Amino acid sequence: MVKINEDYQKLQGSYLFSTIAKKVNAFAEANPDKKIIRLGIGDVTRPLTPTIIGSLHKAVDEMADEKTFRGYAPDLGYDFLRHAVCENDYRARGCAIDEDEIFISDGAKPDSGNIQEIFAKECKIAVCDPVYPVYVDSNVMAGRAGDYDEAAGRYSNIMYIPCSAANGFNPEIPQEIADVIYLCSPNNPTGAALTKDELQKWVDHANANGSVIIFDAAYEAYISEADVPHSIYECKGATECAIELHSFSKNAGFTGLRLGYAVVPKALVRGGVSLNSLWARRHATKYNGAPYIVQRAGEAVYSPEGKKEIKGLVDFYMENAKYILEGLKKAGYTVFGGVNSPYIWLKTPDDMTSWEFFDHLLEKANVVGTPGVGFGSCGEGYFRLTSFGSHESTREAVDRIVNI
Amino acid sequence: MVKINEDYQKLQGSYLFSTIAKKVNAFAEANPDKKIIRLGIGDVTRPLTPTIIGSLHKAVDEMADEKTFRGYAPDLGYDFLRHAVCENDYRARGCAIDEDEIFISDGAKPDSGNIQEIFAKECKIAVCDPVYPVYVDSNVMAGRAGDYDEAAGRYSNIMYIPCSAANGFNPEIPQEIADVIYLCSPNNPTGAALTKDELQKWVDHANANGSVIIFDAAYEAYISEADVPHSIYECKGATECAIELHSFSKNAGFTGLRLGYAVVPKALVRGGVSLNSLWARRHATKYNGAPYIVQRAGEAVYSPEGKKEIKGLVDFYMENAKYILEGLKKAGYTVFGGVNSPYIWLKTPDDMTSWEFFDHLLEKANVVGTPGVGFGSCGEGYFRLTSFGSHESTREAVDRIVNI
Repeated sequence: MVKINEDYQKLQGSYLFSTIAKKVNAFAEANPDKKIIRLGIGDVTRPLTPTIIGSLHKAVDEMADEKTFRGYAPDLGYDFLRHAVCENDYRARGCAIDEDEIFISDGAKPDSGNIQEIFAKECKIAVCDPVYPVYVDSNVMAGRAGDYDEAAGRYSNIMYIPCSAANGFNPEIPQEIADVIYLCSPNNPTGAALTKDELQKWVDHANANGSVIIFDAAYEAYISEADVPHSIYECKGATECAIELHSFSKNAGFTGLRLGYAVVPKALVRGGVSLNSLWARRHATKYNGAPYIVQRAGEAVYSPEGKKEIKGLVDFYMENAKYILEGLKKAGYTVFGGVNSPYIWLKTPDDMTSWEFFDHLLEKANVVGTPGVGFGSCGEGYFRLTSFGSHESTREAVDRIVNI
Repeated sequence: MVKINEDYQKLQGSYLFSTIAKKVNAFAEANPDKKIIRLGIGDVTRPLTPTIIGSLHKAVDEMADEKTFRGYAPDLGYDFLRHAVCENDYRARGCAIDEDEIFISDGAKPDSGNIQEIFAKECKIAVCDPVYPVYVDSNVMAGRAGDYDEAAGRYSNIMYIPCSAANGFNPEIPQEIADVIYLCSPNNPTGAALTKDELQKWVDHANANGSVIIFDAAYEAYISEADVPHSIYECKGATECAIELHSFSKNAGFTGLRLGYAVVPKALVRGGVSLNSLWARRHATKYNGAPYIVQRAGEAVYSPEGKKEIKGLVDFYMENAKYILEGLKKAGYTVFGGVNSPYIWLKTPDDMTSWEFFDHLLEKANVVGTPGVGFGSCGEGYFRLTSFGSHESTREAVDRIVNI
């Protein structure tokens, strides 16, 4: 008789965003007259830009012609895209990353869920609290997390690094040594960003202890401050301890196109084995490449016109961030993030729990956000709003919240 | 200090097709004047059809407009595609499959590599020999395969079901009971196909023993014989024991677009847990949906025009299969497959090993095929050719082989 993977049974309830969707759908059904504004999931709303659209049409036309048709993509990505990534995201920043260290994928979410596979089951995992749920859940499913403690809202075998208002939501290096450390900067959900000096300390810590850092740089395009690094490889020694994950979702609006990449440096070796070769083997066995037409769209992101348009998208959303930040501040809310990040992280008023504030906001302002506690127990009493709406709906949402 | 996943180290050499690519590249560099014909990897060569191209352009235009832009797709696939799949691939064939049992993905390869995750590590896996390498390798990486026996060319803890000329390359039900049984029909690599009666026996066997069948139906569109089932759900009781994997690669030429789906029936329950809910949880946590534009292309496959065009593609490749089959037979080769499948499986002449014949064919005819032993020890002495070339190159390849 087949046995199922019992570790799946240790997952807590539904995935956060599915739960939110269910609550919102129920509210919408019960209140068909209310206009709900969604500042919950980090999904973009601006259409793809003209250069991206042009590249997609061109690539589609290539697929219609026998002479230019493309079948299976190279497992690790087309050279044209790996080259563009390498030149623009690394060499231009002085980071010594080679093209064969870049693995094109269908997004930072799958990469951040799958990367744990190349590590032993007994590895100790450290995450920030609050945290993007995929880091934890993928390790729960792999049997690394131990048992769930309902009261603490935590797994027994995961190391949680608390991020709070006291430390500006930036993680401090813990006493205990972890094998694999997930860091996300600019951070989802708090919007906080590590400076280069702060990140260098993590790199030094990892190199001193043989740890590996999974550095999630999905929000890199939103960085506005000069001392915040765009890549962990701006830090000395990072190629010996860090894997970096990137997304095209938040800079270029590819949430519905699906494109990302992971950087696994060849210098990253543990137990005599190159992690680059392990990740390559995983790609070759379990993945079949991102669609050609989508990889061409990715290439267009790095063209001169593409870069201008992408900057326009980021500026558009950051205008929303500023409006939310200033509006809520004026209304007396305590707010964080929104400077190097499209996320605004706010303290719930009147000691409401995160879910109480979720219901409150949905009922009184018909605005959907994300309860901070959904990202970990340290997120209790906090709430995430995103800047990915239209100017109009974002302003209306803020005005409604202010006027509750 | 981080430990790597040692199970990865048990994988044998490089992935089959990567090895072939390296050998072919080396030959091409050494012989720049030779025109190599590739009948090795099962990659299609015909361009996408007009209806598919039209749907892609239309969907790209939708992504350019704020009003029709689509961000994150639903994890499990858009309803329009799940509906089209359900109506056309199941209800039209009398199979009682519901839309919420269909999980849209980026292809049958990722699905067949990832599906093992929902089972316990101690599950006993059975595969046919020869076999599509992903079934075995993904279980090796998960630690289920035991140790590799170099002499036998097999892993100690995997059950191999021998398929040989003696049984028409169709697996016979073994004495030993496996927990998870991978079946592929029409088969990759042998081209053999199970009749409905034969498949029913596997379903009954699985139901009698609590086993789960992973039924890979990637080549379903190539079935030409009436008694070969297009879906395992044509068999009685299959919804209680079988997961079915489908691809848009081989019928509609989507190898470079990436689209597939898995069917996990709600009636498939083990240890009181619905496998449908486990697979849904995996999708929600580690996957982020197939691109909207690609899902629209998938929908177009099921339109009346799409169906006609797709049939044209399959007919085109099957004309190649017929030419290879007849040509090699006339030349004295012993050949199998090619009737319900785009694959031709031939006995190597003069007791050559599979790799000897690979080198022989590459050197003497400049034709690339796939060594049978790459699919398992029972594939030794066999060789796979595919029908996915142009008419012209396929004919030239056959003529060259015949004239060696």
